[in-house]
Amino acid sequence: MHPAPADERNSDVQLGMVGLGRMGGNMAERLRAAGHEVVGYANDGSGDVGSLDELVKALSAPRTLWLMIPAGEPTHSTVRSLADLLDEGDLVVDGGNSKFTDDTVHAELLDAHGIRYVDCGVSGGVWGRTEGYGLMAGGDPADIERMMPVFDALRPEGPREEGFVHAGPVGAGHYAKMVHNGVEYGLMQAYAEGYELLNAGGPVENVGAVMKAWSRGTVVRSWLLDLMVRALEDDPHLDRITGYAEDSGEGRWTVDEAILHAVPLPVISAALFARFASRQVDSPAMKAVAALRAQFGGHAVHKAGDAALEPPTGG
Amino acid sequence: MHPAPADERNSDVQLGMVGLGRMGGNMAERLRAAGHEVVGYANDGSGDVGSLDELVKALSAPRTLWLMIPAGEPTHSTVRSLADLLDEGDLVVDGGNSKFTDDTVHAELLDAHGIRYVDCGVSGGVWGRTEGYGLMAGGDPADIERMMPVFDALRPEGPREEGFVHAGPVGAGHYAKMVHNGVEYGLMQAYAEGYELLNAGGPVENVGAVMKAWSRGTVVRSWLLDLMVRALEDDPHLDRITGYAEDSGEGRWTVDEAILHAVPLPVISAALFARFASRQVDSPAMKAVAALRAQFGGHAVHKAGDAALEPPTGG
Amino acid sequence: MHPAPADERNSDVQLGMVGLGRMGGNMAERLRAAGHEVVGYANDGSGDVGSLDELVKALSAPRTLWLMIPAGEPTHSTVRSLADLLDEGDLVVDGGNSKFTDDTVHAELLDAHGIRYVDCGVSGGVWGRTEGYGLMAGGDPADIERMMPVFDALRPEGPREEGFVHAGPVGAGHYAKMVHNGVEYGLMQAYAEGYELLNAGGPVENVGAVMKAWSRGTVVRSWLLDLMVRALEDDPHLDRITGYAEDSGEGRWTVDEAILHAVPLPVISAALFARFASRQVDSPAMKAVAALRAQFGGHAVHKAGDAALEPPTGG
Amino acid sequence: MHPAPADERNSDVQLGMVGLGRMGGNMAERLRAAGHEVVGYANDGSGDVGSLDELVKALSAPRTLWLMIPAGEPTHSTVRSLADLLDEGDLVVDGGNSKFTDDTVHAELLDAHGIRYVDCGVSGGVWGRTEGYGLMAGGDPADIERMMPVFDALRPEGPREEGFVHAGPVGAGHYAKMVHNGVEYGLMQAYAEGYELLNAGGPVENVGAVMKAWSRGTVVRSWLLDLMVRALEDDPHLDRITGYAEDSGEGRWTVDEAILHAVPLPVISAALFARFASRQVDSPAMKAVAALRAQFGGHAVHKAGDAALEPPTGG
Repeated sequence: MHPAPADERNSDVQLGMVGLGRMGGNMAERLRAAGHEVVGYANDGSGDVGSLDELVKALSAPRTLWLMIPAGEPTHSTVRSLADLLDEGDLVVDGGNSKFTDDTVHAELLDAHGIRYVDCGVSGGVWGRTEGYGLMAGGDPADIERMMPVFDALRPEGPREEGFVHAGPVGAGHYAKMVHNGVEYGLMQAYAEGYELLNAGGPVENVGAVMKAWSRGTVVRSWLLDLMVRALEDDPHLDRITGYAEDSGEGRWTVDEAILHAVPLPVISAALFARFASRQVDSPAMKAVAALRAQFGGHAVHKAGDAALEPPTGG
Repeated sequence: MHPAPADERNSDVQLGMVGLGRMGGNMAERLRAAGHEVVGYANDGSGDVGSLDELVKALSAPRTLWLMIPAGEPTHSTVRSLADLLDEGDLVVDGGNSKFTDDTVHAELLDAHGIRYVDCGVSGGVWGRTEGYGLMAGGDPADIERMMPVFDALRPEGPREEGFVHAGPVGAGHYAKMVHNGVEYGLMQAYAEGYELLNAGGPVENVGAVMKAWSRGTVVRSWLLDLMVRALEDDPHLDRITGYAEDSGEGRWTVDEAILHAVPLPVISAALFARFASRQVDSPAMKAVAALRAQFGGHAVHKAGDAALEPPTGG
Repeated sequence: MHPAPADERNSDVQLGMVGLGRMGGNMAERLRAAGHEVVGYANDGSGDVGSLDELVKALSAPRTLWLMIPAGEPTHSTVRSLADLLDEGDLVVDGGNSKFTDDTVHAELLDAHGIRYVDCGVSGGVWGRTEGYGLMAGGDPADIERMMPVFDALRPEGPREEGFVHAGPVGAGHYAKMVHNGVEYGLMQAYAEGYELLNAGGPVENVGAVMKAWSRGTVVRSWLLDLMVRALEDDPHLDRITGYAEDSGEGRWTVDEAILHAVPLPVISAALFARFASRQVDSPAMKAVAALRAQFGGHAVHKAGDAALEPPTGG
Repeated sequence: MHPAPADERNSDVQLGMVGLGRMGGNMAERLRAAGHEVVGYANDGSGDVGSLDELVKALSAPRTLWLMIPAGEPTHSTVRSLADLLDEGDLVVDGGNSKFTDDTVHAELLDAHGIRYVDCGVSGGVWGRTEGYGLMAGGDPADIERMMPVFDALRPEGPREEGFVHAGPVGAGHYAKMVHNGVEYGLMQAYAEGYELLNAGGPVENVGAVMKAWSRGTVVRSWLLDLMVRALEDDPHLDRITGYAEDSGEGRWTVDEAILHAVPLPVISAALFARFASRQVDSPAMKAVAALRAQFGGHAVHKAGDAALEPPTGG
């Protein structure tokens, strides 16, 4: 665990972390290792305090709270509660995967009580605790500045601008994260298609070794490739996994947003649709295609003798 | 069965039909109904003669033979045999689904023996016997002219140019048919996607009735839509069919040809790939995507308590 | 102009038509030709009355009004005005291209005043006046029944169910029309890709004649194909048109709705994105791809001598 | 320049390099820096010798030649010449971007003279000289073993298996490189789409800074992203580049190969088609779509007054 060098930090800060799952819990650990004080709260009783109210009371004003909880209703209701519990001058950061349009609503709700709001997209998954988290923040410059010691502790080592950005006003952080995730869908699908083709019958004898050899020097080297190599070392033919891929919302929002702005998004949308299709037991659309083929070909069953000397009746 | 009006026919002709499956058999019937003489041969013994050799002997020179057999080796070997059996001035029409590049080879092989060659893409499936077949022919003008009585009998009623075209030199007929089938893939998938979306949870209560109401007056009315309506009247939720769709080659050739000429083909290729995917029990690519997601999320199983208050760890 | 046979009509009715553009004006003509009384209003002064207020006064209660005006604010404000102007028991049909989610809002707004509401998707374009319009309606059964004389006059000749559907409750008509338009995008793009490929260098010599020959007997025959044939007869190489394709909203809503329901829509989305791309003078995405290629290849200009004997430096 | 540690090298070797462009020239430099002897030949007279014949004579038997020249005819003719010039036991490596199907032909041609053949896909572009080249080799194990000192010098520092793979028999190296490049197309397009969407009107104020902040800690970090960041630092809005993207063959072969094996490749094909489209001054397909829209809308010009109060006539 290597947080940013001390000379880039303004000072150690106190932070309330709401949500202590794999993301929030790891982030709290990384912040503490960097010398910050974190008071944690989780609704399963695993935190340092037993309620939001206790969390607020445990922090010194002006308070800083970081939300690391599911987007949608859990975040909405927490923001509503905090609007009542917090004082003027306190600051809330939403580090979860909220849609950027939620940020404006949350910021306005809190602003009516004089409470500041920052949105921050966080990337890195379970690796972030040791490697640092990529951060994309949106908000007023003064609020971003106030949070810099926290951002510096969470982000990876190296130049600040390579792992952190103040992307724009409230909402810009989650917007940047949304597009990040859309890009991620496209990248993952590209590797996945390559993986499938390498296995499909060509002369390559060891697909795992080929993908591992892409790790250095090639144009396609990346952290996702490194993860692919790890997955194949663990399970060389992915026998222990089924081709069922969830999506967590940002990919959908990315395509919706592209449609709003008339931006062609053929690759990212194809990656999203491949995930949708992966979850279908049987595809209604392909039933329709099969039904149409049966319609031109007639309902009769193919007779073996015929089949030997006739072309198909349709495409 | 309504062949073209007699005044468009030059004269009744004699034709040898090789292949008497659903396509060749129906075409022979339509030709006979139009007054032409058809001697049929099939390699399952169902024809009028027992061998290619007998077929050739049963026809008066200059002979005309129509091949309606599977593309690839069955057609290749039949053409090779005919090169030896036929005489100068005879004519062979390949009405099967051969790739257009095969036509040049077959034409040259036969030309060395003074035998003429025409390729003819045939569309219409099992409906063609009564409704007529859409025909796309390639070859020398004199050979096309010679075949016009046959083409006129096979094509639908109405103006000749609405159901028949001399598309260009040898190969052009199968090329036009290849593109026709590529377009067909796109059309089928478009209806299929609409069918799936109508069923996906919106306010529409009777999807079959909606698609039937598209039959007249709308922009999307078509013969394929009529077939879709028939399929849904027969099996309203397509319960008796699985979403498994074959492809018969022309769609693949269409995309390959587009790639050769640097023509973007996003819709037709998407329709082709949807068919490929429909035949996979599990998708290797989507296993790879799922494996990557597991890599960022860590191998640990989600714990119920955590899940309640944490955002997903990645897209 | 051939409206439905009289024995399918309940009785002649009186209708107020709001919007007399190419759609509303033609529909008014078709309704009058069927014996119905239409009082027309347009905000450009071209109608029978000079204001909405006058239109309402010109109709006998219980009144029926058909809106054929642009979706969005023009429709919203007209519905708001009608809520004040109309009386209990009057009925408003929105025949424009409103989003199905607007229908619920409009229906509730009018229902508060005891005014009935039906939504009706209308397909057929400028051809509808003579050929009839494909109609997809949503609403309460009693309201649909009340409108049947109008629907029967507007729809094409032939069985009612082939050109009209009561698709479900309020919103279902516009939903069915939305999906219809999404399918339409896919169909158009499929023909368009086929047109481009036929022109791209293969052996086909007369692309217009090939597409015309698809008009009868083939699997791809359709009304859109007939329009394509007309377009090519008018302008064989489409020299008088540029490859710039607008979209009018329904295609976007179709993809958004598919995303909401996790329905894969590869073909319809590809068709939509092709339209977006067609309107770009230069593609930012492709600038980025070109920039990346320059990055691996180095900033140096290619030297002629080198180029002759070296492979490209990247894909 | 940091070639692999000496303890992984068997011995210094002598190599003839055919082709001294940006790839071959840089590779020769890297090999020399690693202590190997390279005799270079280029057909523009820039090498150490003036002809292939002189190159062969300048090397001690058993000779090793590395071809780094354009795929297709230049490589074919060079292999044919070498078949005559070389002796039994000599070895030819094709490091260019040949199609894997060429490898079998070249290997058989040389094998008839007792000459060995290895194919080696090389990735890394102009950066390879200093960072090392990702290598994917195909051939007999003994031939691969014989080439290991050269491979070790060319590949990046670090574990051999992270920058080199013996992928299988002759052809497997170029096959692996082909798929690598297909994946590369998908990756590039994914970043490019993200770049375009970030610029399309959302709240993000500095797109370059956002993409730079993806460099560390995020899921999308990669070498291609680093290149994107460099490109944007150099030209923040890519004003100095047009959205015109070439392709060098491997992407096409990848899609063709996927079609052969019935592998769905939606993302890689979409990326390929986006490049095709980027090079069109006007799209014939989109002219066809525009023509169809004009057909339903009628040829009449929109009148301003009408437009204000009517919906579009079609999708």
